[in-house]
Amino acid sequence: MKERTLIKNLNEHVGKVVNLSGRILNLRELGTITFAQLHDYSGYVQAVFDKQVEFKMGEVVSIEGEVIKEDRSKTGFEIHAKSASIISKNSEELPIDLAKKDLRLQLPTLLDNRTLSLRHPKIQAVFKLYDLLLEQYEMVMREEGFTEIKTPKILGAASEGGANFFSIEYFEKKAYLAQSPQFYKQIMVGVFERVFEIGSTFRAEPHFTTRHVNEYISLDAEMGMIEGFNDVTSMLNRVLKRMFKRIGEEGKDLLAMYGVEMPTVPEKIPHIKLKEIKKIIKEKYGYEVPADTDIDPQGERFAGQYAKEQLNSDFLFVTHYPWKDKPFYTMPSRENEEETEGFDLLFRGMEIVTGSQRIHTHELLMENMKKKGVSPKGMEFYLDTFKFAMPPHGGWGMGSERLIQQILGLDTIKEAILFPRDVKRLVP
Amino acid sequence: MKERTLIKNLNEHVGKVVNLSGRILNLRELGTITFAQLHDYSGYVQAVFDKQVEFKMGEVVSIEGEVIKEDRSKTGFEIHAKSASIISKNSEELPIDLAKKDLRLQLPTLLDNRTLSLRHPKIQAVFKLYDLLLEQYEMVMREEGFTEIKTPKILGAASEGGANFFSIEYFEKKAYLAQSPQFYKQIMVGVFERVFEIGSTFRAEPHFTTRHVNEYISLDAEMGMIEGFNDVTSMLNRVLKRMFKRIGEEGKDLLAMYGVEMPTVPEKIPHIKLKEIKKIIKEKYGYEVPADTDIDPQGERFAGQYAKEQLNSDFLFVTHYPWKDKPFYTMPSRENEEETEGFDLLFRGMEIVTGSQRIHTHELLMENMKKKGVSPKGMEFYLDTFKFAMPPHGGWGMGSERLIQQILGLDTIKEAILFPRDVKRLVP
Repeated sequence: MKERTLIKNLNEHVGKVVNLSGRILNLRELGTITFAQLHDYSGYVQAVFDKQVEFKMGEVVSIEGEVIKEDRSKTGFEIHAKSASIISKNSEELPIDLAKKDLRLQLPTLLDNRTLSLRHPKIQAVFKLYDLLLEQYEMVMREEGFTEIKTPKILGAASEGGANFFSIEYFEKKAYLAQSPQFYKQIMVGVFERVFEIGSTFRAEPHFTTRHVNEYISLDAEMGMIEGFNDVTSMLNRVLKRMFKRIGEEGKDLLAMYGVEMPTVPEKIPHIKLKEIKKIIKEKYGYEVPADTDIDPQGERFAGQYAKEQLNSDFLFVTHYPWKDKPFYTMPSRENEEETEGFDLLFRGMEIVTGSQRIHTHELLMENMKKKGVSPKGMEFYLDTFKFAMPPHGGWGMGSERLIQQILGLDTIKEAILFPRDVKRLVP
Repeated sequence: MKERTLIKNLNEHVGKVVNLSGRILNLRELGTITFAQLHDYSGYVQAVFDKQVEFKMGEVVSIEGEVIKEDRSKTGFEIHAKSASIISKNSEELPIDLAKKDLRLQLPTLLDNRTLSLRHPKIQAVFKLYDLLLEQYEMVMREEGFTEIKTPKILGAASEGGANFFSIEYFEKKAYLAQSPQFYKQIMVGVFERVFEIGSTFRAEPHFTTRHVNEYISLDAEMGMIEGFNDVTSMLNRVLKRMFKRIGEEGKDLLAMYGVEMPTVPEKIPHIKLKEIKKIIKEKYGYEVPADTDIDPQGERFAGQYAKEQLNSDFLFVTHYPWKDKPFYTMPSRENEEETEGFDLLFRGMEIVTGSQRIHTHELLMENMKKKGVSPKGMEFYLDTFKFAMPPHGGWGMGSERLIQQILGLDTIKEAILFPRDVKRLVP
């Protein structure tokens, strides 16, 4: 193979003949002229042939041609192609038309053909943005002094309340898939004070919604030495502000493909108590949140609308979730024992983060479990840790794919996951 | 709480009174003088009290005192403490002595008490180094143009050969835990050309060794447009070289706690064919690798010894693994059909990476599967992707915990995992 030039480096080769290689993601013939859109891992460029070409749409080729400055092109350059050779061919016709500006496929078709639909530039953009999200989360968390941890996803007991765990055959035993790194990240606060984790989480919830899947990537954090959950929401506020700013800058072109920009994260995201926002929703929008839920998706949408219209914010912290709905490790509220020091963060009317101050004394933890009727069985390792000076602490779990869904305005979370898993879908 | 000063910022407060807070990780009384080692997320410092103190070893406290420059101290500062208050207490005696320079516990005791033994400074150092490893892998891979991906860990079929999968009850169906992101990262090469993943992998192998666990974090990569597996080993060589250099610089103090330095990764790590290294091991060390294995741990150790003594390298690429031992997607060797374009990387005599060039045409893939007697059932989504111009490609899977084990010279991989999982251990 001749020495390869990357598309991102074309500016160093203007007027020279180079060898590019990659996939053809668009191919048009106009009379005797052929326009081919070439993609390598560094970018896109158009190659122009003054003849017909041998290769087909979607194939992997090598192109030799001269680099021309071309201001009308998005990338600033064009290749006047001299020759091309095929590196890898299609052995069948592509089942979907990757050259269309928008795929516009029904979700099942999109996902059934996922291994190919992901090659579409606009769908690629979702996952380039996701890459950027991971990068920025890691970077900002490290800047704030958090240590990255990796905790086990196979658990000996279905703890944390018990429902919605997938069970595994683990040699002679039964084991369970982690619903969250909750216990482990708390334990690790006792070690490093500030920890974060990016990891797979598994929920056996039989949901069919646009915002649930059964496996997702959670952006977790836990921090010690707090005075209250406000220290956690402040940290999250700061983290998001910095992440969003940088993603907005570095992901500008990706966002533009969806006609969106990153929202500005306010210096101080507004906080409101759950019971207050429910009242507002009822008074302002005539909607009553059903009694069997703390807040339902429709309620969240109205809360988001209120935040945007009245508080000029895409974000809203909803605080003081009811004690009865929160897990046993959530710190009860000091002022009202029916409430907790727990919060959600809504982003454009969808919950993307759940967090709280946690209970940090063994005594209160045991008392709260008893009140809730939770058995300590299988959790002894976790509970015993609290006998040994756990600092006051709190943290959050953030849905990485929901963040991308909301940033880009995707119809469903499944579009923000490479290979989503739901009740019916285990393939591809 | 008064405004907190972090230990890392003491240099800004010399001669002033500050408030520090964190955990006491050492406590000694000498007459009326008390020395307390304080740890917060930013570092360690010694606080000196001219009286006895109320708090106990291992507790979480706030200390008010004057910052003194102290050249004999490792951190360059000392606190002349005026007062202390307890933030969080032990309600029982610590079951292990965290103040000892080395814990020197038997492995089961170390792991049974993991939630507390992790607080020991020398054990903390393992996981600070691990944090650095994750950071550097991500950083270097991005510098090389790789896109970070997250692929599903729940699979619809136990593919890739079939053995050693954990099975899950997935609603009405049976599903399996991913042994590696192999199929998905290859598919993603068809999208981004260069991808990497840091993810949980699960192996249902009933091993009891110092280098196997049933859940670990794999550092995966896959790259397209290669001419042969040498492009993959070159990339890995470059990635490791850069990672090791930076870890050596930033992790200097952590490494010093184990009396080690990062080895220099050679500009070009030596390559040797498996059958040649076996011959050398036999001739030089009188050891015959058992016939039922490609190479066994003892053989790897001798290979490592040979690399160090004869080639002055801590690393050795062993190449051309036998066709019969490699998975069906491994590219057969061009020169010898009994061999493959597959390699392992040994680091100080232990396999830390497995990789290969992969088959990239549908025809050869089907032919190779047939020869191996592998059924395509459940893999159709993967196999079909190869009908659509997959570029020539290859990649690797690297065991993150084995890397740390070998860098620090730990007795077992389990010491390099926060909460390891083996056949018997699901707790903590």
